[in-house]
Amino acid sequence: MNNYVSLIEERLKAYLPSKDCMQKDVIDAMEYSLLAKGKRIRPTLTLEFCRVCGGNIEEAMPFACAVEMIHTYSLIHDDLPCMDNDDLRRGLPTNHIANGEAIALLAGDALLTLAFEIILSEKTLKSVESKKVIAAANLLARSAGTKGMIGGQAIDVSDKIEKVKKETIELMHGLKTGALIVSASQIGAIIAGANDEEIAASIEYASALGLAFQIVDDILDFTSTTEKLGKSSLSDERGKKFTYVSAVGLEQSKEFVKELTNKAITALNSFKYNTDFLKDLALSLEKRDH
Amino acid sequence: MNNYVSLIEERLKAYLPSKDCMQKDVIDAMEYSLLAKGKRIRPTLTLEFCRVCGGNIEEAMPFACAVEMIHTYSLIHDDLPCMDNDDLRRGLPTNHIANGEAIALLAGDALLTLAFEIILSEKTLKSVESKKVIAAANLLARSAGTKGMIGGQAIDVSDKIEKVKKETIELMHGLKTGALIVSASQIGAIIAGANDEEIAASIEYASALGLAFQIVDDILDFTSTTEKLGKSSLSDERGKKFTYVSAVGLEQSKEFVKELTNKAITALNSFKYNTDFLKDLALSLEKRDH
Repeated sequence: MNNYVSLIEERLKAYLPSKDCMQKDVIDAMEYSLLAKGKRIRPTLTLEFCRVCGGNIEEAMPFACAVEMIHTYSLIHDDLPCMDNDDLRRGLPTNHIANGEAIALLAGDALLTLAFEIILSEKTLKSVESKKVIAAANLLARSAGTKGMIGGQAIDVSDKIEKVKKETIELMHGLKTGALIVSASQIGAIIAGANDEEIAASIEYASALGLAFQIVDDILDFTSTTEKLGKSSLSDERGKKFTYVSAVGLEQSKEFVKELTNKAITALNSFKYNTDFLKDLALSLEKRDH
Repeated sequence: MNNYVSLIEERLKAYLPSKDCMQKDVIDAMEYSLLAKGKRIRPTLTLEFCRVCGGNIEEAMPFACAVEMIHTYSLIHDDLPCMDNDDLRRGLPTNHIANGEAIALLAGDALLTLAFEIILSEKTLKSVESKKVIAAANLLARSAGTKGMIGGQAIDVSDKIEKVKKETIELMHGLKTGALIVSASQIGAIIAGANDEEIAASIEYASALGLAFQIVDDILDFTSTTEKLGKSSLSDERGKKFTYVSAVGLEQSKEFVKELTNKAITALNSFKYNTDFLKDLALSLEKRDH
């Protein structure tokens, strides 16, 4: 994992636009959030699913970075005053606190745009077939759009939708968090030229992992302290948002995380290459405390 | 022009995601701005440059719509309270006034994302070669990013940069407005399979037109009334922003618009097909009063 994280962070840095221009402020703001210490789970999934399907992780690298850029832009916009209005993220002031709202908004827009610029660049095309590039880029756009991540956020901010039922919260999580985790994994498999069974298994693993991940977030928001979490704990409760814990209670939430983790691990049987890393990742996310 | 506009608006409507879902609000908000009556200059340029380079405008249609989606998202985000804080756009309440800030922010994000989803879709690939699709999509991303539109907006909102000099205002306009107008035109030529001279001429025409367009905006902001403009006039003055008119005065601004219009029209000599429409478009933009 550490090896992947340093590879990813090095490449993210290299993909940032040069600052030798008048619009330096917005590039600084992109860097501020993109290089803040994150878990890098999504890009790690892209690289590792590429590897377990027999692909070359170097070919998956631009896609891994694009996924992380899209994740980062969503955090910046999510933290804005008109959304969750959060002051703290990954142990640091949120982007708009550090750089002002206008620049934070633009930095988010710019990271989303840069994600597509990178995967569609001539450099990427030198090592990856156009057919794969287009399939991966289209999947990324769909998973980030209204039928994916943005759709989940729209449900989250809506005060017209009652988010009391377990099913509604699962749908919301599936879109808001799950969709990008699934596409991150599936894109790794696509770049490797995986077969249908492997693609299906990458989706199954990532769907279970994504939902488990978000329920653990809800559990941590309910039980953890600000210090451990690096963001304001109970921020979801303060904002009167419904969470999985508020829907089914703490114990049943924990039980469901276990089930999902097992489901993810079972899906790994479809791969020829060693999947210990993905198994350990699922187990470690189940047990994380921040 | 009217023919193009109705073709474009019909297709924009068709590209909107289905509303049969919980995230209907954000799709309504996308539609609200995307189908508000606009001039549709950018997508018209995409279609017409495709035609004058001998291409099939139907093939350019997804790209024309993607360009308009990116333009529309930039207007929604630009109008937000943390940016220009405008209440009126195209004669209607701005998106955040009508739909709330959170949904407006997400609708902007979603239009940017949908632009890439559409041009990278299987349907587009059925009629356009992957090489052209990727070249056009990459160009679109670059023109919308920090070295294009977002870069121009970043300069615009910065209070560290003195925007008194003509050169600075020209650079800002070139990025904020010009870059997308240029890529809209160039993409039309690319889809048609244009030669290097035609590509260069499409860039030259659009650069001149884009700058002229923005200077006319500055002139109208200075002289026009709210009623004609459909947005608050003098909003740029109220926000204490510098414009081309504030830099060189009204008369010299008008003179420069004429020069740029002539330059655009001269560039049209490079095309084999009839370019009367593009000539008339340049002349009509010079003379527009809203």
